[in-house]
Amino acid sequence: MIWLLGERKKILLIHGMCQEIGDGIDYDKLIKRFGCQKIDEELITRFERVTGKKAHHFLRRGIFFSHRDMHNILSLHEAGKKFYLYTGRGPSSESMHLGHMIPFMFTKWLQDVFNVPLIIQLTDDEKVMWKDIKIEQARTMAFNNAKDIIAVGFDPGNTFIFNDLDFIGKCPSFYQNMVRIQKCVTYNQAKGIFGFGDSDVIGKITFPSIEAAPAFSTSFPFIFDNKVVACLIPCAIDQDPYFRMTRDVAARLKLPKPALVHSTFLPALQGAQHKMSASDPNASIFLNDTAKQIKNKINKYAFSGGRATVEEHRLLGGNPDVDISFKYLTFFMEDDERLEEIRTTYKSGELLTGDLKRVAIEIITPFIQQYQARRAKVTDDILSEFFKIRKIVV
Amino acid sequence: MIWLLGERKKILLIHGMCQEIGDGIDYDKLIKRFGCQKIDEELITRFERVTGKKAHHFLRRGIFFSHRDMHNILSLHEAGKKFYLYTGRGPSSESMHLGHMIPFMFTKWLQDVFNVPLIIQLTDDEKVMWKDIKIEQARTMAFNNAKDIIAVGFDPGNTFIFNDLDFIGKCPSFYQNMVRIQKCVTYNQAKGIFGFGDSDVIGKITFPSIEAAPAFSTSFPFIFDNKVVACLIPCAIDQDPYFRMTRDVAARLKLPKPALVHSTFLPALQGAQHKMSASDPNASIFLNDTAKQIKNKINKYAFSGGRATVEEHRLLGGNPDVDISFKYLTFFMEDDERLEEIRTTYKSGELLTGDLKRVAIEIITPFIQQYQARRAKVTDDILSEFFKIRKIVV
Repeated sequence: MIWLLGERKKILLIHGMCQEIGDGIDYDKLIKRFGCQKIDEELITRFERVTGKKAHHFLRRGIFFSHRDMHNILSLHEAGKKFYLYTGRGPSSESMHLGHMIPFMFTKWLQDVFNVPLIIQLTDDEKVMWKDIKIEQARTMAFNNAKDIIAVGFDPGNTFIFNDLDFIGKCPSFYQNMVRIQKCVTYNQAKGIFGFGDSDVIGKITFPSIEAAPAFSTSFPFIFDNKVVACLIPCAIDQDPYFRMTRDVAARLKLPKPALVHSTFLPALQGAQHKMSASDPNASIFLNDTAKQIKNKINKYAFSGGRATVEEHRLLGGNPDVDISFKYLTFFMEDDERLEEIRTTYKSGELLTGDLKRVAIEIITPFIQQYQARRAKVTDDILSEFFKIRKIVV
Repeated sequence: MIWLLGERKKILLIHGMCQEIGDGIDYDKLIKRFGCQKIDEELITRFERVTGKKAHHFLRRGIFFSHRDMHNILSLHEAGKKFYLYTGRGPSSESMHLGHMIPFMFTKWLQDVFNVPLIIQLTDDEKVMWKDIKIEQARTMAFNNAKDIIAVGFDPGNTFIFNDLDFIGKCPSFYQNMVRIQKCVTYNQAKGIFGFGDSDVIGKITFPSIEAAPAFSTSFPFIFDNKVVACLIPCAIDQDPYFRMTRDVAARLKLPKPALVHSTFLPALQGAQHKMSASDPNASIFLNDTAKQIKNKINKYAFSGGRATVEEHRLLGGNPDVDISFKYLTFFMEDDERLEEIRTTYKSGELLTGDLKRVAIEIITPFIQQYQARRAKVTDDILSEFFKIRKIVV
């Protein structure tokens, strides 16, 4: 599982969409290519009617832009039936960056709105297969990343977190579901979906079954008492291939197909044709950056849609569509009116690039500082609470 | 894992030796092809010197005919160091037959001679992949087969038995070793060794890592305290490809290569060009056959090396080399002198086919009856003792 990070490029390349990376990603084209549905006004309206809550600005602003079977999930909720949320992350040794927060922030919000259990998978086994790292390093990365995720604001009362390298050896039902899934997918199919080659190691080839297994509630008998419960997966769009496969397998196993909501990517500081990546420190704002670092990075690297001189800018106006500071505000500024005001005044030339960058810094810095305050409180004991194999009642 | 049963033919075909099945198996050719060593007089002599025990008649008569690194195991024993034994079986719904007994009888004897722990793997997950059966059926088969194996005479004091579908979900170290192994083997390599095709399911492709993992003591921290302990695998020759792969992986993981001793196959009643198979009731003597069934099967089906008429037999003599009753005596009659007497008198024509069959019935019937008496005593509680995850001290 890559979950916003790392292999997206590869997957997009597989699907013949390399040209779209250079130009920024054409998300509408992805919807068409992947065969998922656009999150439209009708779905958002229904979402608000069924839940009685205003839609998250990630939904209203198209940051979560695509779905599969989200109407089914709303119908279940209308009928008073429970489902569960499943998301995850491929652990990394670097600090998480702002982009990693997006699916987790949205997942937290969904969990609050629907009051349902959440399962978070850390695919440390995948990292052993794809990277030059040992089992022990991968596990350490998973535990550190879990703390970073917990600090988003999750509650051990309704959230179970696991890393594959420890959990698979503690849950026979999970391994049995892996076997069921592995029986439904041929090498040819895996090759077609993920672009494996004959010189790939066998652990890579079987990995998709491991990312698929948590989409079936029967993998977690200690949570769901072996009941079949529907699943909703919030994830970045690059993860869709795993779950298209999972949905095909679900049909064969006569289990419910997991529903999905897909996010776009938070762009890198350098511009919308890149996504924020942990491997380039100057492309990303990290969750452990200081206020000074954030200020410097935005001032120095955030691609500007402004003009070459103040005079020109006043005369012709800036371009918010390519401006990274503005883009970040669409992700992190909740106030719709203020955001619209910034957009129009920037476009008219009234608001200068320096002003816009200052607003971005003012919004992002406290967001990260509050996150850091929560992160500082995540002890090993709290981590253990989330990882404990236990019953979850919501 | 097939372990004497089922897929051998496939593996032999892969290695381009289909012609040898029709003619009976040329075991010397297999040794050459697989690159293993013949169990020769020198090894047997050293075995007897080092252990102070007379070599088992399976060794003396070439029934266990081939090995890898058996001298290393003897050197360890000489130096007062421990190793462990690992063998297994791919569970089947049918009763075990006489042929299945061979590796287990020899394993039991090795365990008695060396006083070492034994680990027995039941690959119920493999059966789900290869056969049209469900997880639950495969597990039931594994538990029933385990009882059949226990009745060979194993002791829960020094023997751990597990089935993959339950155990892998109970032992993180085992899964972690699977991951280490899966990282060392490419699809191309697995294809070359096992003949997988692109339309095979991904669970088949990854399975060799599951048969390999028990060859590393670190897969069983509860038995070996995470110490690296050498492993000796008694198995039928058809399993060698799994362990050639395992030995290559061991070198890359800087772990000791498992040693091996290989058995020939017990031929089917119909003749040495077949092996005893559970799927043909008239080809096999089953461990749950009655005395009457055994008598009938040997009298009716056991291929005879005798002549068409008594007169001709008396004149020309019989051929013990193709006679199945005689062949069975080489497996099950321990008395060397009596066996030699039978061979010479049969060859001379003095001993008739009917006489030879009677001797075979007299040897095999009590052997099976004693087995059945032990099998009747294997309760669910005894089964649980063997399956319990626990420390084994020998």
